[in-house]
Amino acid sequence: MKGQDGSATLWWDAGAGCLCYIEQTLLPNEFVVIGCRDTGRLATAIRRLEIRGAPALGVAGAYGVALAAMTSAATSREQFLDDVRTGAELLRSTRPTAINLAWGIDRVLAVVGKTENMDQARKLALDEAETIRREDTACCHAIGHYGAELLPESCTVLTHCNAGALACSSWGTALGVIRSAVKAGKQVRVIACETRPLLQGARLTAWELARDGIDVTVITDSMAAQFMRKGAIDAVIVGADRITCDAVFNKIGTYMHAVCAKHHGIPFYVAAPLSTFDGKSRELDVVIEERGREEITTMGNRIFVPDAAAVKNPAFDATPMDLVSAIITEKGVLRPPPDIPSLLTCTNTK
Amino acid sequence: MKGQDGSATLWWDAGAGCLCYIEQTLLPNEFVVIGCRDTGRLATAIRRLEIRGAPALGVAGAYGVALAAMTSAATSREQFLDDVRTGAELLRSTRPTAINLAWGIDRVLAVVGKTENMDQARKLALDEAETIRREDTACCHAIGHYGAELLPESCTVLTHCNAGALACSSWGTALGVIRSAVKAGKQVRVIACETRPLLQGARLTAWELARDGIDVTVITDSMAAQFMRKGAIDAVIVGADRITCDAVFNKIGTYMHAVCAKHHGIPFYVAAPLSTFDGKSRELDVVIEERGREEITTMGNRIFVPDAAAVKNPAFDATPMDLVSAIITEKGVLRPPPDIPSLLTCTNTK
Repeated sequence: MKGQDGSATLWWDAGAGCLCYIEQTLLPNEFVVIGCRDTGRLATAIRRLEIRGAPALGVAGAYGVALAAMTSAATSREQFLDDVRTGAELLRSTRPTAINLAWGIDRVLAVVGKTENMDQARKLALDEAETIRREDTACCHAIGHYGAELLPESCTVLTHCNAGALACSSWGTALGVIRSAVKAGKQVRVIACETRPLLQGARLTAWELARDGIDVTVITDSMAAQFMRKGAIDAVIVGADRITCDAVFNKIGTYMHAVCAKHHGIPFYVAAPLSTFDGKSRELDVVIEERGREEITTMGNRIFVPDAAAVKNPAFDATPMDLVSAIITEKGVLRPPPDIPSLLTCTNTK
Repeated sequence: MKGQDGSATLWWDAGAGCLCYIEQTLLPNEFVVIGCRDTGRLATAIRRLEIRGAPALGVAGAYGVALAAMTSAATSREQFLDDVRTGAELLRSTRPTAINLAWGIDRVLAVVGKTENMDQARKLALDEAETIRREDTACCHAIGHYGAELLPESCTVLTHCNAGALACSSWGTALGVIRSAVKAGKQVRVIACETRPLLQGARLTAWELARDGIDVTVITDSMAAQFMRKGAIDAVIVGADRITCDAVFNKIGTYMHAVCAKHHGIPFYVAAPLSTFDGKSRELDVVIEERGREEITTMGNRIFVPDAAAVKNPAFDATPMDLVSAIITEKGVLRPPPDIPSLLTCTNTK
C-alpha cells in the first residue's frame, strides 16, 4: 500500500474509493493507515490530530470537500451544493489557526461550483484535491532546494514540532530542507525539540528522521536555549501554520526559540509554502486555538496536574517578523522586513 | 503525623527513630510519607528524586550522615568514623550539581569528628542535622521576607520547577517569596511552568500552591515566552542548585526563561540560601548531571521517542549573571554584577 513506507502521509485510494492517511496520534508505537469515507470522520481525525501540520491540513481539507461531493445523495444541484458546503464548513470549523485548511477547502469548493452536472462536479473536486496534493509535494521539494542552500556543509539544525513529511503530503517543509541538504551531500544533524504538550517532535520528527537514517537527538523544549549557548546549534528551522504581514504563527514554543536564536546570533528560518501566507490579516486578527486541559495534565495513564490548578493550552504562538531571518518558500527565500507584498517579491527565484 | 499537612518536607521522628520524608515522585496523585532508617535507602531516595530541591538535599545529606552514625555497629572509633565517611560519600555521589547536598554532609561530618565518644558523636550528628533543618526553615522565611518586598502589590509571577516547601524543609525559596508576599497582603498569581522532563512544576509547585489557596496556572515550559510577550508576567522567580561567581545553576529551562525575561524587560530573580553559593568554582568547573534517557522517552505507560533516536537529558543549566536581576538570600537582596565577595556584601540587610 502506498504510504506504507512512510513516504506519503495522505492519499486517495481509487480502488477502495477512500482517503487514506497515517494515524499520527499512534506514532511512533503503531503505524496505522486509516481509510476514511466521509467528511464527518475526517473532521474528527483533524480535530484529534490524527492528521495535522498546516500543508497536510490543506490537502486534507481539499479531499474532505471532494468526499462531501462524492457522498452526497442529493437529487437536485441545490441540495448537492448544500451538502458540499455543509461538509466544507464542518471541516473549516475543526481548527481555526492554520490557514492552509481553509485554503484547500476553498480551492475545491470553487471547482464544484463550476458545473451544473453533479457527477462532473464530483470528478472535478477529486481532481482538484489530487492536484493540490501533487502541488504540495512539489512545493516541499522546491522549499527543500532553496532552504538547503542556506545550510553550511556540516551543521546541526534545531527544529520544533513536526514540519516533516507527516505535516505535508510528503517530504516536508522544515524537514524537507534538511532532507534536501542531506540529499545534496551536506552533513546535517538534527536536534528535535519534543514539543509539549503533544510531543510531535519526539514522536513524529524523530520517527521520520530516524527512518531516513538522519542523525536526530530529542531534547525537551526547555533545553534548546542552553544548547544554543553552548554553540551546539547552527540554525533553527521551523514550519508555519499561518504567516501574516507581521508575524509567523506556528506551534507553541516557536517564539521562545526565535527569541533565544536572536540572543545567540543564530539564524531563525521559517519553511512554508505560499499557501500559508495570509495577506489579509495582521497578528491580532488571528484566533489562536486553545486546546483542552487534558493535553497538559495527562500523559499515558498518569495525571500530572492537581485538579485545583488552572491550565492554559494555546496550541500556537506568534513570532514577530523582526526575529525571522528568512522565510523559505517554493518560490525562493524571502527576507524580512516584511509586508506581504514585499515578501512575495522573492529575493531568490533561481 | 508531622508533615501530613504538607508544611514540612522531611523531619526526624524521634519516637520511631527514623528520618521521615514526603515521597515526591508520587505527588500529586498520592501523598506518602516514607520512614527511612539507613543511608543506603536515603541515597536511593535522593537518586530517584523522592527527595529533591537544593535546600532539601542539604538537610537530607545532614540527616543521612547522622543516620550513618546511628546505624554504625562499629566497636572502635576508627571503624565508626570509617562507617560514617562511607555513608557520607555514598550520599555525596548521588547527585553532583546541587552544592547544598555536600554542604549539609560536610557540616555533620565535621561535628562527628569532634568527640572520642561514639554515642556522643551520634547525638551531636543528629543535633547538627536538626539545627540545619531549623536553619533552613528560618532561611526560607527570611528569603521570603526580603523577596516579597520586590513584588508589586498585584502581580503575576512565573516560576520554573519547584523551589517550594517540597524543595526545602518547609516554606520554600522562590515559593517562599510568593507565600510571604501573599501573607503580607499582596495579590500574587503564579504561572507554574510544568518543567520537563519530570514535571516538578506541574506536580509539585501546582500542588503546593493550590493547597495554600494561591492562584496557580500550569503551562508548558515552551509557553512562557509568549506569556511574557503578551504582558502576562511581571516577574520571574526561580530557585538555584548552585551559584558560582559567574552563573546560577538551576533546573534545565531556567536559562531560557532568563533570556526571554531579558528580551521582554521582565525582572529575573533567583531565591536561594547562602548555602547554595559556591565561591570556589566558576561555571566551567561544575558538573552538570546527565540523567537517564527514559525520563524523556517514557511517561506513564507510554513510550514517546523511537529507539533509533538519540536523547540528551542534562538536569540543569547555567544562567550567566548578566541575566540575573537579583539574588534573594536570607541576608538580603544581592544585585549583580557579581563576584562572590561582592555578592556576599548585601545591598539590603535591614
